[in-house]
Amino acid sequence: MEAEPIASAWIAPAPQPLLIRDFFTRTRTWAPDRTISYRNLRTLTYSAWMKRVEQAARVLRDAGVRPGVRVGVLDWDSHRYLELFFAIPMLGAVLHTVNVRLTPDQMAYTIRHAEDTVLMVHPDFLKVAEEMAPQLPGINTWISLSDEGVTPVSTLPFRGDYEALLAAAPAGFDFPDLDENTVATLFYTTGTTGDPKGVYFTHRQIVLHATTGALTFAVHSQPLTLNDHDVYLPLTPMFHVQAWGFPYMAVMLGLQQIYPGRFEPSMILSLLEQHRVTISHCVPTLLQMLLHHPESSSVNWSRLKIVIGGAPLPIGLAQLARSRGIQILGGYGMSETGPLVAVSHVKPDHPLDPGTSPADALDVVTRTGFPMPLVDAGIMDAAGTLLPPGREHVGELVLRAPWLTAGYHGQPEASAALWRGGWLHTGDIAYLDTDGYIRITDRLKDVIKIGGEWISSLELENCLSQHEAVKEVVVVGVPDPKWDEHPHADVVLRAGFEDQVTPKALARFLHRFVEEGTLHKRAILTSIRIVPAIARTSVGKFDKKRLRAELAAGLKR
Amino acid sequence: MEAEPIASAWIAPAPQPLLIRDFFTRTRTWAPDRTISYRNLRTLTYSAWMKRVEQAARVLRDAGVRPGVRVGVLDWDSHRYLELFFAIPMLGAVLHTVNVRLTPDQMAYTIRHAEDTVLMVHPDFLKVAEEMAPQLPGINTWISLSDEGVTPVSTLPFRGDYEALLAAAPAGFDFPDLDENTVATLFYTTGTTGDPKGVYFTHRQIVLHATTGALTFAVHSQPLTLNDHDVYLPLTPMFHVQAWGFPYMAVMLGLQQIYPGRFEPSMILSLLEQHRVTISHCVPTLLQMLLHHPESSSVNWSRLKIVIGGAPLPIGLAQLARSRGIQILGGYGMSETGPLVAVSHVKPDHPLDPGTSPADALDVVTRTGFPMPLVDAGIMDAAGTLLPPGREHVGELVLRAPWLTAGYHGQPEASAALWRGGWLHTGDIAYLDTDGYIRITDRLKDVIKIGGEWISSLELENCLSQHEAVKEVVVVGVPDPKWDEHPHADVVLRAGFEDQVTPKALARFLHRFVEEGTLHKRAILTSIRIVPAIARTSVGKFDKKRLRAELAAGLKR
Repeated sequence: MEAEPIASAWIAPAPQPLLIRDFFTRTRTWAPDRTISYRNLRTLTYSAWMKRVEQAARVLRDAGVRPGVRVGVLDWDSHRYLELFFAIPMLGAVLHTVNVRLTPDQMAYTIRHAEDTVLMVHPDFLKVAEEMAPQLPGINTWISLSDEGVTPVSTLPFRGDYEALLAAAPAGFDFPDLDENTVATLFYTTGTTGDPKGVYFTHRQIVLHATTGALTFAVHSQPLTLNDHDVYLPLTPMFHVQAWGFPYMAVMLGLQQIYPGRFEPSMILSLLEQHRVTISHCVPTLLQMLLHHPESSSVNWSRLKIVIGGAPLPIGLAQLARSRGIQILGGYGMSETGPLVAVSHVKPDHPLDPGTSPADALDVVTRTGFPMPLVDAGIMDAAGTLLPPGREHVGELVLRAPWLTAGYHGQPEASAALWRGGWLHTGDIAYLDTDGYIRITDRLKDVIKIGGEWISSLELENCLSQHEAVKEVVVVGVPDPKWDEHPHADVVLRAGFEDQVTPKALARFLHRFVEEGTLHKRAILTSIRIVPAIARTSVGKFDKKRLRAELAAGLKR
Repeated sequence: MEAEPIASAWIAPAPQPLLIRDFFTRTRTWAPDRTISYRNLRTLTYSAWMKRVEQAARVLRDAGVRPGVRVGVLDWDSHRYLELFFAIPMLGAVLHTVNVRLTPDQMAYTIRHAEDTVLMVHPDFLKVAEEMAPQLPGINTWISLSDEGVTPVSTLPFRGDYEALLAAAPAGFDFPDLDENTVATLFYTTGTTGDPKGVYFTHRQIVLHATTGALTFAVHSQPLTLNDHDVYLPLTPMFHVQAWGFPYMAVMLGLQQIYPGRFEPSMILSLLEQHRVTISHCVPTLLQMLLHHPESSSVNWSRLKIVIGGAPLPIGLAQLARSRGIQILGGYGMSETGPLVAVSHVKPDHPLDPGTSPADALDVVTRTGFPMPLVDAGIMDAAGTLLPPGREHVGELVLRAPWLTAGYHGQPEASAALWRGGWLHTGDIAYLDTDGYIRITDRLKDVIKIGGEWISSLELENCLSQHEAVKEVVVVGVPDPKWDEHPHADVVLRAGFEDQVTPKALARFLHRFVEEGTLHKRAILTSIRIVPAIARTSVGKFDKKRLRAELAAGLKR
């Protein structure tokens, strides 16, 4: 006797939307008196800060900001920026977080491409804004974002300074009801080729990223746990995919927050100590720099939990951080992915107890990461087939999750390529290990092909970073007449080691890993150069593109 | 210079749906070997259990279960029920969790009203199922859910036993892509008047309730924290709003789980101890019963965290639980709300340290609760105006959150009344305290009106529960010729106190609170009766409706 099927699925009426506005609802009464600070200049309660968001919305609406309008912001990490994280999207407008580390021409390109009509500029970026202005006929409203509340002297026709405009605006604002798929933020990534591409995120995506992200960091015990006592300071620039979404989590949870403003290491170190900051996130090079800073010893690092992203967490840095008492782990994501999709939490049945060998702990936290709840991670071969777990099944990492960008703004072909076959293609080469962790072996473009064999530049970097004399290291492939390519390493030595260590000694150090079987034997072909510094990209990563070009040019000479 | 507004909001393309299926993605590789146990009968790994979900889906599809089909389930809390929590909705069908504590006539009413065509029945409910069968012409497939895998001898035309059908089904199943607004579950609440009403929840709502719920329990430090080491055992029946959504959280997080089956206190106590259970949830009366059970001392209660819901957490019970080392708090919700919307977490700046006075801690954890992230809670007066916080602003608690039921299935008028003015009306009388916590003073129907003054029956219960001799207490209003109503309390005494305490002594105990100003002075009009037991409703709450009727009848005699 077969069931008589009802004709079709039972679909419920349109649900309540997920909106950025919802982050305020609870925090308004949970933490009205907790504080948000800006450098050593200003501390606001959440109550006062929320009032400022309403005032900011009024200022922007008076300036013509309506749903769909794009507003570009050039600022350091600040309480102002945090206000604009809310005020602009809650108006139904789009926050374009301008990448201030691009060249003026690139920056101007993104502002035109985004069709920004309002530009908000911290005085530190005044010169570049003035330089770009002739290329930006679409901007009809300029607002300055000074610390002092004073419009700077400029050729730009400023409507006024943010602080002064806020002071004149009444509080209280009825934010409109929005479709949850309204675009909230827009950010341009610097690809390896061509013009920057704009990724965008909706209210719904930002809410889902924040709730699932906070859940991931809160529910896991090892090696670090987010909780309601945490004091948060971002070390990632806010323009970079909303500082990885952490400021939204912090507001949703009503955490105490500190915004460090203009990048000044000694200011950051002093704020970390003064506010007893407990949680932050950054790229590895930034943490490296802070830990090696002369004033580093003024900070009690042992209260800090830090999430490393943007580039793999090298074992050497994880060792150093742990030796200072920092709870550290790696996160994985990219601008296109919102960004968080995987975090290197340790499984409860793999305890990092005091009894566990440190090498074991480092092994887990330096893995690329475990997919977060609601994230589906696959490994795809060139034919588009999903591969099983196992080190022998290397392919491109592909992803599905509810908060990945829908595509590149205004670039249907690049968007289709990003999402071919219904998966977001990361361009990262990886495998899933037998524990289920993602293991990125390289960027597609960073794999070094030596006589038909693939060698991971990341693994090479990891090995060299473990030498006591090595402060920083970057590895790229360079053309080789015999092997197609061979690896090349640029190494920066730690202070005191400058004349103590030769490239030859570092090469010998590599041999050890080859003998252990950790490194492919062709890694001994690596050419090593000791350099005073390594060039970085606009977001602080090592500029491999530039190094490759430089080495290729050198070969031709 | 006004900005030229872009014509309209920028809406992104349709996003990736939120589906119950997504709970599996991560857990499949995070916790393949962790276990799910059923009584002392069976333990499965997640891997094996997930295979069974696929097999169950195949069995159901072979039985004609298509998208939109309603499948009724009558079972105790079991691994089978957990399998059906996933298999049925992941087919696009609707899981009707039949309330097995209703009368057969009421149960049959809900099965007809839900238009169930498949009914799955544990042998313990065989008799009632046979009794209902003539009233259920719509059921064309019967499946038994025995522990032994054997179809019971019955007048019902069973297609087979679940376990035997599973054994014959191949594993591996391609679950369909679904609209996230597809209804996943249906449950009938017993209102105070009229027929039971069906509340329903979509895939999207279940995902949002689980992620936000788990975040809430994981991120807070006081008085309890959910983490990835937890071992979970439900004490709430799974038919009751999906056991408050906790099984979905547990699967999403890959927690070890124990399902206790048929309600047997000594089995529950033994499972708690054997599996070192760390987290559970139930109504207050159930915890009361377990803590007073003769075998209660065999359990090390101090590892347990427990969420109390369904009725307010009385101070007396919180005291007792804390004296055993249990970490306890109150949660608030109702069938209509998914159910969790508020939890009585303690703010980080109000620490429940050993130094804090116990009374202070009890004060917070016995409050109704603080709204969870994404929940908007308001207090509305009779005119539909939202009231400010403060004890003096009492009104009806109204709610908004993305996971509240869209209405009552097939009852447009009741649905419209539930959602009048765009808020879900709870029927609870409450105020928001100055810390932002919801404080329910009564159900609309439980308020006692004494000569124009309102007195809270809950406050009276709370006061009486603090007397050392009182095990259980229930208070209702009874008609009174002089005062309109006066309060009446039925009290069950603790063992050993039976002949030691008189109603008069309890009345004198109440006077103390009146003198302190905690209770309204008209509380001294309370009539008190000592009884051997208090009647309960189908979900284990005190049956106030019945008590009121009984007292009214007594008055007429």
